[in-house]
Amino acid sequence: MASATKKARTTPPYELIYWPSIPGRGEFVRLVLEATGTSYTDVGNASEDGIQAVLALKDENATTSGEGNPPAFAPPALKVPGEGKDGKALVIYQTPSILAYLGEKLDLAGTDEAEKHYVLSHALTALDLNNEAHDTHHPIAPHLYYEDQKDESLRKAQAFRESRLPKFFGFFERVLKGNEGEGNGKYLVGKKLSYADTTVWQVLDGLKFAFPKELAAIEKDYPTLFGSFYTGIKDEGGLKDYLASKRRLPYSEGVFRHYPELDRQ
Amino acid sequence: MASATKKARTTPPYELIYWPSIPGRGEFVRLVLEATGTSYTDVGNASEDGIQAVLALKDENATTSGEGNPPAFAPPALKVPGEGKDGKALVIYQTPSILAYLGEKLDLAGTDEAEKHYVLSHALTALDLNNEAHDTHHPIAPHLYYEDQKDESLRKAQAFRESRLPKFFGFFERVLKGNEGEGNGKYLVGKKLSYADTTVWQVLDGLKFAFPKELAAIEKDYPTLFGSFYTGIKDEGGLKDYLASKRRLPYSEGVFRHYPELDRQ
Repeated sequence: MASATKKARTTPPYELIYWPSIPGRGEFVRLVLEATGTSYTDVGNASEDGIQAVLALKDENATTSGEGNPPAFAPPALKVPGEGKDGKALVIYQTPSILAYLGEKLDLAGTDEAEKHYVLSHALTALDLNNEAHDTHHPIAPHLYYEDQKDESLRKAQAFRESRLPKFFGFFERVLKGNEGEGNGKYLVGKKLSYADTTVWQVLDGLKFAFPKELAAIEKDYPTLFGSFYTGIKDEGGLKDYLASKRRLPYSEGVFRHYPELDRQ
Repeated sequence: MASATKKARTTPPYELIYWPSIPGRGEFVRLVLEATGTSYTDVGNASEDGIQAVLALKDENATTSGEGNPPAFAPPALKVPGEGKDGKALVIYQTPSILAYLGEKLDLAGTDEAEKHYVLSHALTALDLNNEAHDTHHPIAPHLYYEDQKDESLRKAQAFRESRLPKFFGFFERVLKGNEGEGNGKYLVGKKLSYADTTVWQVLDGLKFAFPKELAAIEKDYPTLFGSFYTGIKDEGGLKDYLASKRRLPYSEGVFRHYPELDRQ
């Protein structure tokens, strides 16, 4: 793989537009860029007024996100100068769409058409789990405070822990088993890292933060997922450096929140 | 466009694997096949034991969905004989992944790379709205009865109607406005039909069934979306025939359900 410095000269100046200070959904995009040592600007965190770009993206009167691109429903968005229509910037939103785009550019999307779709499908499934994790503390509405939907959260979190986590974890365990001949329990698709791996990994990592007791109790039921996979991905070149760096933001008030009352009692 | 008969000879024998009797998430796949007059087998509805293929797909011990493909998390899945590895069948799951695949094959995914990603992003946003509509009657857990989560449903549905619908409808109205020069208020991306259009259309149609009073009250605030767009898509060649056919299944107990108490009072 080319070094970060070398790649920085041959790839476009990618700009991630996402809320500052939290990992959130922006983290899925950061991971693919970091795993491949790709140079990018994390606009929201790059300067004091970086948040202005995020707020502009969310302007509910805009019919474009700039340079002829359609408006974006919500952050994250990826801006790629020079790669849009007529040499202008391309702006795309929706995490899976950004991942599919970067996945092809950065060789994280499998080796053929079948693998390309496996990778997208597994990443979508991890992002569904991510959404369900978010809804454990916001089951009624995203614009209400947790405290104003806490009763519902207690019920939702219990169902999530008892019924949804085993379903998702069991599924990813089976995907790893089915691909063991090529992936050695370390990769979900084929023989090498894809954005399905980084996306599933990030959700597992966030769940370990949000539900530490639950995860400690059930991880052993999914030995490949929490063994060779979770540990292995963390040690991949670009990711190992990134996870130890200051660019890796701590969990706090984003998708993954640790409310002890929502965890296993 | 080639006739259905002609296409049937030149496209692979697509198989949709989805629950019988309901439109559900399978409907997004049906619409792209029907809009293009593409021959396919709706396995779940094609015979009495068609449901066996759906149940096999959901087998929670399987490490494959057959012929070397990974397991599928949930229906719908698309099976394409001859298009997988080594000439075997390709099986892909996750609605957006299936739509991206068929979109490229059936020329419903825009005309260049930028449009391809706009189409995917807008379809994903419509599918997010679809999920939120589902959660109005299942806010706590998908495996519990509506009656066992009705109090939470009443609260969730109110927030959905008052806060989420205007946000999504306002967004799609702006996308149509931003593309008015090419799409004439009828297409979300570029000059012609894409799977973003069929996907947004299906969600609007489902919402009209589930929340008839709410929709009747607010549609006028989104004149392009519910005017030229909603009406226009319904009249597209393949779709017009399909929507009048018996293959178009009625809404009942799927994603879109009409509970009068969840609608505007």
